[in-house]
Amino acid sequence: MIKAGIVGGTGYAGVELLRILAMHPQVELSVITSRSEVGKPVSGLFPNLRNKVDLVFSEPDPVALSSCDVVFFATPNGTAMATTPALLDAGARVIDLAADYRIRDVAEWEQWYGMTHTSPQLLDEAVYGLPEVNRELIRNARLVANPGCYPTAVLLGFLPLIEAGLVDSDNLIADCKSAVSGAGRSANVSTLLCEASENLKAYGVSGHRHLPEIRQGLETAVGMPVGLTFVPHLTPMIRGLHATLYATQVTENDSLQRLFEDRYADEPFVDVLPDGSHPETRSVKGSNYCRISVHKPQGRDIVVVLSVIDNLVKGAAGQAVHNMNLMFGLEESMGIDSVALMP
Amino acid sequence: MIKAGIVGGTGYAGVELLRILAMHPQVELSVITSRSEVGKPVSGLFPNLRNKVDLVFSEPDPVALSSCDVVFFATPNGTAMATTPALLDAGARVIDLAADYRIRDVAEWEQWYGMTHTSPQLLDEAVYGLPEVNRELIRNARLVANPGCYPTAVLLGFLPLIEAGLVDSDNLIADCKSAVSGAGRSANVSTLLCEASENLKAYGVSGHRHLPEIRQGLETAVGMPVGLTFVPHLTPMIRGLHATLYATQVTENDSLQRLFEDRYADEPFVDVLPDGSHPETRSVKGSNYCRISVHKPQGRDIVVVLSVIDNLVKGAAGQAVHNMNLMFGLEESMGIDSVALMP
Amino acid sequence: MIKAGIVGGTGYAGVELLRILAMHPQVELSVITSRSEVGKPVSGLFPNLRNKVDLVFSEPDPVALSSCDVVFFATPNGTAMATTPALLDAGARVIDLAADYRIRDVAEWEQWYGMTHTSPQLLDEAVYGLPEVNRELIRNARLVANPGCYPTAVLLGFLPLIEAGLVDSDNLIADCKSAVSGAGRSANVSTLLCEASENLKAYGVSGHRHLPEIRQGLETAVGMPVGLTFVPHLTPMIRGLHATLYATQVTENDSLQRLFEDRYADEPFVDVLPDGSHPETRSVKGSNYCRISVHKPQGRDIVVVLSVIDNLVKGAAGQAVHNMNLMFGLEESMGIDSVALMP
Amino acid sequence: MIKAGIVGGTGYAGVELLRILAMHPQVELSVITSRSEVGKPVSGLFPNLRNKVDLVFSEPDPVALSSCDVVFFATPNGTAMATTPALLDAGARVIDLAADYRIRDVAEWEQWYGMTHTSPQLLDEAVYGLPEVNRELIRNARLVANPGCYPTAVLLGFLPLIEAGLVDSDNLIADCKSAVSGAGRSANVSTLLCEASENLKAYGVSGHRHLPEIRQGLETAVGMPVGLTFVPHLTPMIRGLHATLYATQVTENDSLQRLFEDRYADEPFVDVLPDGSHPETRSVKGSNYCRISVHKPQGRDIVVVLSVIDNLVKGAAGQAVHNMNLMFGLEESMGIDSVALMP
Repeated sequence: MIKAGIVGGTGYAGVELLRILAMHPQVELSVITSRSEVGKPVSGLFPNLRNKVDLVFSEPDPVALSSCDVVFFATPNGTAMATTPALLDAGARVIDLAADYRIRDVAEWEQWYGMTHTSPQLLDEAVYGLPEVNRELIRNARLVANPGCYPTAVLLGFLPLIEAGLVDSDNLIADCKSAVSGAGRSANVSTLLCEASENLKAYGVSGHRHLPEIRQGLETAVGMPVGLTFVPHLTPMIRGLHATLYATQVTENDSLQRLFEDRYADEPFVDVLPDGSHPETRSVKGSNYCRISVHKPQGRDIVVVLSVIDNLVKGAAGQAVHNMNLMFGLEESMGIDSVALMP
Repeated sequence: MIKAGIVGGTGYAGVELLRILAMHPQVELSVITSRSEVGKPVSGLFPNLRNKVDLVFSEPDPVALSSCDVVFFATPNGTAMATTPALLDAGARVIDLAADYRIRDVAEWEQWYGMTHTSPQLLDEAVYGLPEVNRELIRNARLVANPGCYPTAVLLGFLPLIEAGLVDSDNLIADCKSAVSGAGRSANVSTLLCEASENLKAYGVSGHRHLPEIRQGLETAVGMPVGLTFVPHLTPMIRGLHATLYATQVTENDSLQRLFEDRYADEPFVDVLPDGSHPETRSVKGSNYCRISVHKPQGRDIVVVLSVIDNLVKGAAGQAVHNMNLMFGLEESMGIDSVALMP
Repeated sequence: MIKAGIVGGTGYAGVELLRILAMHPQVELSVITSRSEVGKPVSGLFPNLRNKVDLVFSEPDPVALSSCDVVFFATPNGTAMATTPALLDAGARVIDLAADYRIRDVAEWEQWYGMTHTSPQLLDEAVYGLPEVNRELIRNARLVANPGCYPTAVLLGFLPLIEAGLVDSDNLIADCKSAVSGAGRSANVSTLLCEASENLKAYGVSGHRHLPEIRQGLETAVGMPVGLTFVPHLTPMIRGLHATLYATQVTENDSLQRLFEDRYADEPFVDVLPDGSHPETRSVKGSNYCRISVHKPQGRDIVVVLSVIDNLVKGAAGQAVHNMNLMFGLEESMGIDSVALMP
Repeated sequence: MIKAGIVGGTGYAGVELLRILAMHPQVELSVITSRSEVGKPVSGLFPNLRNKVDLVFSEPDPVALSSCDVVFFATPNGTAMATTPALLDAGARVIDLAADYRIRDVAEWEQWYGMTHTSPQLLDEAVYGLPEVNRELIRNARLVANPGCYPTAVLLGFLPLIEAGLVDSDNLIADCKSAVSGAGRSANVSTLLCEASENLKAYGVSGHRHLPEIRQGLETAVGMPVGLTFVPHLTPMIRGLHATLYATQVTENDSLQRLFEDRYADEPFVDVLPDGSHPETRSVKGSNYCRISVHKPQGRDIVVVLSVIDNLVKGAAGQAVHNMNLMFGLEESMGIDSVALMP
């Protein structure tokens, strides 16, 4: 059994991680910390975990965490980077669901996240935890930077096109629609039901922190700078993320459909839909799948890719457990193979 | 492995049954029928089942169904009663998620359901599949009448009070709030998103088909006629059912809290919340739990019980699989032990 | 033109008041205060008011407010009671949308609201602003206590029965379902979309502040103590309130339908639906109507009344403007006669 | 008073038209037809209209309709084209909310709508009813083709850029998100609450009927063929439409913000938000406004325009009444000047 610790389990990624790990046959939940809820049973905050998780929130304690085989950080940005060096030294492996180790360029990270990085020496070692790109590196990683929700859906949608050099990488557009849970569980007026329900809006058009993360992923794949316009939208639902991607095809190709099917033929969590399909976010609700379809409307040279994930699963906790499975040599889909809840 | 067949798998109870059975370690999905979708893959209609269920909808075929160990009917009322006698004769066992075998009094059934019962000879044999009442009978049943969603939540809430003779059974009130999936997956204007979202209404106040079913369950427990007012409401959500129950206490009692905890101490799927709690429907979303709390507001003699279930799981497909587990001697919670999806 | 001031216009009752008053032909919005938003344009916070309201939030200023003909308090409980005496002395009239002057018994008020009342001398003078009960008193009032949302829907539903002495007033049950906007616009985890959407729960079963307010209204009508069980529920929608009321009929009556129709025959904002109807909350969305129907299910002696309002209009801002119209001798329905938005 | 008739008032555009016309000070609702609801009171189907509209649905009767000053068609595509010639001959004026007269090229119309046009001789005379483009023509029109919801939001967003020749009109992208009411009030499984709530999907990527309508509007403005990619999405809300538009700037310009403000300076229903804003769909719920903002993210040459409308008001019934006001010389905003309902 793998002893797992969770730092910061009171947000939505945290409770989703708890839900998944509580059902994982090879994981023993060992410690969960939260400064604000110390001493309270986890199942008091999240009644869905009653009779399944009997842990109590504890103070973050380096000793307790160090004794874990793996520590997940489901914390705000800037928390993991403080404790991770000591945990790695103590022999634990770390999966950060926040952004601390996602951007390789420390200056760019500090600019977008508005703080000084306190363990930049780990940026080279940290592996970007997108299994469809870095599977082998993840297996051996001590430190995994779990991807953001938007980057996961956008990269999986663009990669087949970019890797094959089929589209103009100077002019990529990612129009993304996220559920409200992506904004977290903190008390904000803008995510109240009465503000966010029956409403839809773009936000962060001038610049969103997932922009450099997506750009880095694309540039790594294509080997040169790319031009990306990224517009996220807040949409009135709890879970789900839909990326609508636009690119201009510049090189001929027999079948985009086949390109996508071949690229993901061996991937357990990427499902390329039949030609002409439109994936629905609900088809992945509560599941670790990314479902994708590719279109070329009206015979023009604009390729449209539709890519959906559950932002809390494939976009956060599920992908983190996928990474853990790889890191510990377990079957990839162990504990994250459930069917989406529909309706 | 238990060979299972499903008749009528295109509604919401059907797809939920498919989701649960696809993950059940001791079930082999053998046949699924639907007159309207013959020849189509199940996963075409329900993309959440892609890569999990590769069955194709077939014509209802008595021979194929007869070869199953168990046949679930997830059909409109009046369908199961036609085929069940032959299936039982062929040695299959039957679980009907519709109402055909729920009411013991055939005249009452025919009045409420507006049709002639075609296999009334089975009404005596049929077991009402509420495990918390009929566990032992279910184990040996050939034919189980799976309870309705409202009756499940209402009976589990009233039973401890009624069985103990603590309340006036002449004046019971069940004010129930159901999600829209309770109305089924057929195309009706009244359940369109634009009609049912941002809206709440009572319906069927003059009489709802679950009224005689609840009354029968109460009368069986108390051994005499009861007086019940049942008002169902349609509420703007996909899943969930909240029963708010009112009864007048007529006999003193030390602790209603203890009464409820004792009644359900050994029940794997009834969770009595701590004193003073208010169960939320989302705490059981996608799970087979019923969560209950009991109150006596303001020290008056009115007892208020709050009881929540997922109408598609404990109120339909999950309870059906619970019954199957009992019928086939499996662990009760096998395949229905997942954690509710929250948020 | 009536000069109107609003204290505390940043909550949902406040913005609804602004919406209505901005379109009222006889009102000039003169001042709106908010400590937290001083200096900001109202339409910056509420973009629906762009081009309609060009006021800027100001510090609460007794002089500016005193120059108004009428001052509305859309503030938390306990705010109006501090300033109202001075405003009345200065000749302004006051409508309090909060609870400061709703309960005549100061001790009971202080117990339920947990604070000392600072202007109890006004409790005798204050008129409870339910036009269907106190129309004449409201016309001449200097100070109107605008009713709560639950009390409005419950009282309008029970009054015909209670006033006629038809039901047992010792055992009244009000099972109420409110939209989330009833919980206000402050940042709370429990009213986030991801917590309150796809969810339904009872709350405050042991005691809610609207209980004494409803009881006072019933006792005033019947002239003796009543026994009331009141259970509020939070339901996943923005606007709307549905009260389901249960009472035991003890005196014969020819037609409950006629009783209700007669009671409200001259009321501009109470609409008694045809026999057998079920009012929907959406049928009053954005409008000042209360729609009601009355049932006697199964020929038993339990009367069921269904009563719906928009909690922000008839349950708050609309009723406040109705009161203002009465106080200033305007046509009752002026400015609040719009049709509900449906769908 | 203008005598108005409505053909086909049982859909969402129809009931919205009824809501607006019922409050319009210069309109007398004279006749409303519906084959399916003949003899039923309008307020039976739409209880929000109780006490406001006492019309009864009647058979479509050319004589009754001919006596109207204006006839609105809120019918499926292909209905208006049959009756309009006779109505015009009889002296009535016609506003078609469907698509029959929107496309000038009859062959293109017949291809996209899959039927033969029965009154193509009127296509030249019909005025495309976008007041911000065709105000003067509308004033004198006998026949107005009311624009579709997507075309309204997209054209108003692109027009300032296109008319000024600032962007590459060969590569325009319109990523649009619509509420479910855009799909109409007919009973379809795909728009049930349980299918469309908590879900988001693109649809019609290979080609949507609003594509040629948008393209025609853009080509008329720019005077040459344009290249447009249009991807509509279904989003889980009742009302609202958000267009996110992408174009490549090819000509320098001092201030896009000023360009948009100048273009719409005199428009009563287009509101250009301050620089850096993100319009929300709820800010126009129930109102006739289009709110727009323009961005140039990251200093790159991609212009992003955000444009929101209520699909049933500015995208249908409100714009139709705006057109009527123009046609009959009334104040433009008469009867459609209400404030959006928020929250």
